[in-house]
Amino acid sequence: MSTFTAINLVARPDSGPISAEIFEVVHKPIPSAGPGQILVKQTHMSLDPAMVGWMSPDTESYIPPVGLGDVMRSSGIGEVVESNHPDFTVGERVMGMMGWTEYSLSSGEGLRKVQPGLDAEMVLSVFALPGLTATQGLFGCGHPKTGETIVVSGAAGSVGSIVGQLAKAEGLTVIGVAGTAEKCDWIVNDLGFDGAINYKTDDIDAKLTMLAPNGVDIYFENTGGPIQQHVFDHINAHGRVIVCGMISDYTAETPSAGPNWIPIIKKRITIQGFTMPDHLAQLPELIARLTPYVMQGKIKHRSHILNGLESAIDGLNLLLTGGNQGKLIVKL
Amino acid sequence: MSTFTAINLVARPDSGPISAEIFEVVHKPIPSAGPGQILVKQTHMSLDPAMVGWMSPDTESYIPPVGLGDVMRSSGIGEVVESNHPDFTVGERVMGMMGWTEYSLSSGEGLRKVQPGLDAEMVLSVFALPGLTATQGLFGCGHPKTGETIVVSGAAGSVGSIVGQLAKAEGLTVIGVAGTAEKCDWIVNDLGFDGAINYKTDDIDAKLTMLAPNGVDIYFENTGGPIQQHVFDHINAHGRVIVCGMISDYTAETPSAGPNWIPIIKKRITIQGFTMPDHLAQLPELIARLTPYVMQGKIKHRSHILNGLESAIDGLNLLLTGGNQGKLIVKL
Repeated sequence: MSTFTAINLVARPDSGPISAEIFEVVHKPIPSAGPGQILVKQTHMSLDPAMVGWMSPDTESYIPPVGLGDVMRSSGIGEVVESNHPDFTVGERVMGMMGWTEYSLSSGEGLRKVQPGLDAEMVLSVFALPGLTATQGLFGCGHPKTGETIVVSGAAGSVGSIVGQLAKAEGLTVIGVAGTAEKCDWIVNDLGFDGAINYKTDDIDAKLTMLAPNGVDIYFENTGGPIQQHVFDHINAHGRVIVCGMISDYTAETPSAGPNWIPIIKKRITIQGFTMPDHLAQLPELIARLTPYVMQGKIKHRSHILNGLESAIDGLNLLLTGGNQGKLIVKL
Repeated sequence: MSTFTAINLVARPDSGPISAEIFEVVHKPIPSAGPGQILVKQTHMSLDPAMVGWMSPDTESYIPPVGLGDVMRSSGIGEVVESNHPDFTVGERVMGMMGWTEYSLSSGEGLRKVQPGLDAEMVLSVFALPGLTATQGLFGCGHPKTGETIVVSGAAGSVGSIVGQLAKAEGLTVIGVAGTAEKCDWIVNDLGFDGAINYKTDDIDAKLTMLAPNGVDIYFENTGGPIQQHVFDHINAHGRVIVCGMISDYTAETPSAGPNWIPIIKKRITIQGFTMPDHLAQLPELIARLTPYVMQGKIKHRSHILNGLESAIDGLNLLLTGGNQGKLIVKL
């Protein structure tokens, strides 16, 4: 009987880098599909910043934390290798929350079929969590208008890179914040952002003054950190702040303080946090909204591929340090 | 020729208490109404926290700062004592932005007539800036629902006391935050709030746990300070934060930091700042919205009366220290 590998979460992460010790690699016999079930062999597994939050014990978050002893939660794409389900046939590709495992049994609930011919990396980079998050955040919360200026943090990340390209396609001036010269080059020269700020080496305030001479109308927050205060200093009346991610603080021992709220009154700012589980019912609309931009070639992406299930553990730390270049995907 | 007194702003305030030195008391001859003009003798002048912001040199605020050498800006009620304007007759009462002056000339623009029989203190406490600000903030930004829990800071203040009473009338659980035992007693025993937190002496976290066992749905911010973090710790999913005032930080040397933004994502919080000049077109609707609560006796108020124009200078410091008990009004 052949076996497969899965990885369980067995402890909560401390502050700082994520230790391999909080995971347990297990080997189990490959099961067979029961009545009404399908057996899926995962081929591509997505690593997303939100996963760091899912591991924390906070019971008040938008979805329950991953249980200790349970397979780590993640989304991915796989192939149906056995089917006792009338809606699925062997060889079809499906995507959904598969977890850190090579094989999984499913009733089909929560799985979407992947259109034949679509590249799996593109699907996970654009039409999965990153693209839908970018679409909901920018259009659902940001209300962008042609001629406005948007600042996006984590701009070379999976969500930020799509937010910036969507905003550019809508006629906004787009300024991206990233942490390496390579990422800043990529978002300006390959993705067409109007400007980039390297938060590690640039004078953020001076750069914002130069790149956003008419002030900032929208701030799309993916990282946390001092850019918040700088944006508050440059934001226009009726500015909108969309809070999508705080990767720099998720495993910080002491999460950084936010800016003082006086500008929220003076500029009548709206700050809105959102997470995708609230918008699952809108997925078809979000996909419909995003698709034309992709079809018109306006959304470029790049993937950072890791190989083998166990590479996911170190992969999480790439997200925390910004060491990845593009959407992190584990190929199985 | 008889003279009258006015007070000009001649310097910007430093941090800390507001010094009488930044004002100049001037005596001028009482003018006569020119063609199309009216001469108004002010009888009641309102002192509001927003005035502290109007004195600061920040040119990016929602209205321009008071110019140096100009009469200090304020709203008030006065009597028409001369009229060359077809719409106004001598003896009528009007309200509007009259400034720190005993007499003023007006074209009538921006003045509203005060219904005969209404008490001037009630008008300035409820139907002027405080009541309309409370109405716009609670209903326009807060979207209160019966059964929800609201926390109001500056709860014994002119805006906070009305916010809490409106919320109570709408069937919410209302928790007020104030800085003296007397104010806490007043909002619970006279105004009918469900609970009060004395931020100077209570364990805020423990009190919130006790008073809001189902969490906090709405936070109405009038003051700034550490209550922000405590509310973030207790806020429910889809909580709403309305940022109306930050009196504790307006003249602080170092404005206090805000809370970290992670809860904004996890709880999908919306934070919205607002100021009334954006809503002048809605004043008739706001008055119509507020009036039934007043008519039904659901909105109590109290005034803290100072006497004589020059008492306004020390009056501003009462607002900064929370030393006032009720709506601050200068009787002329």
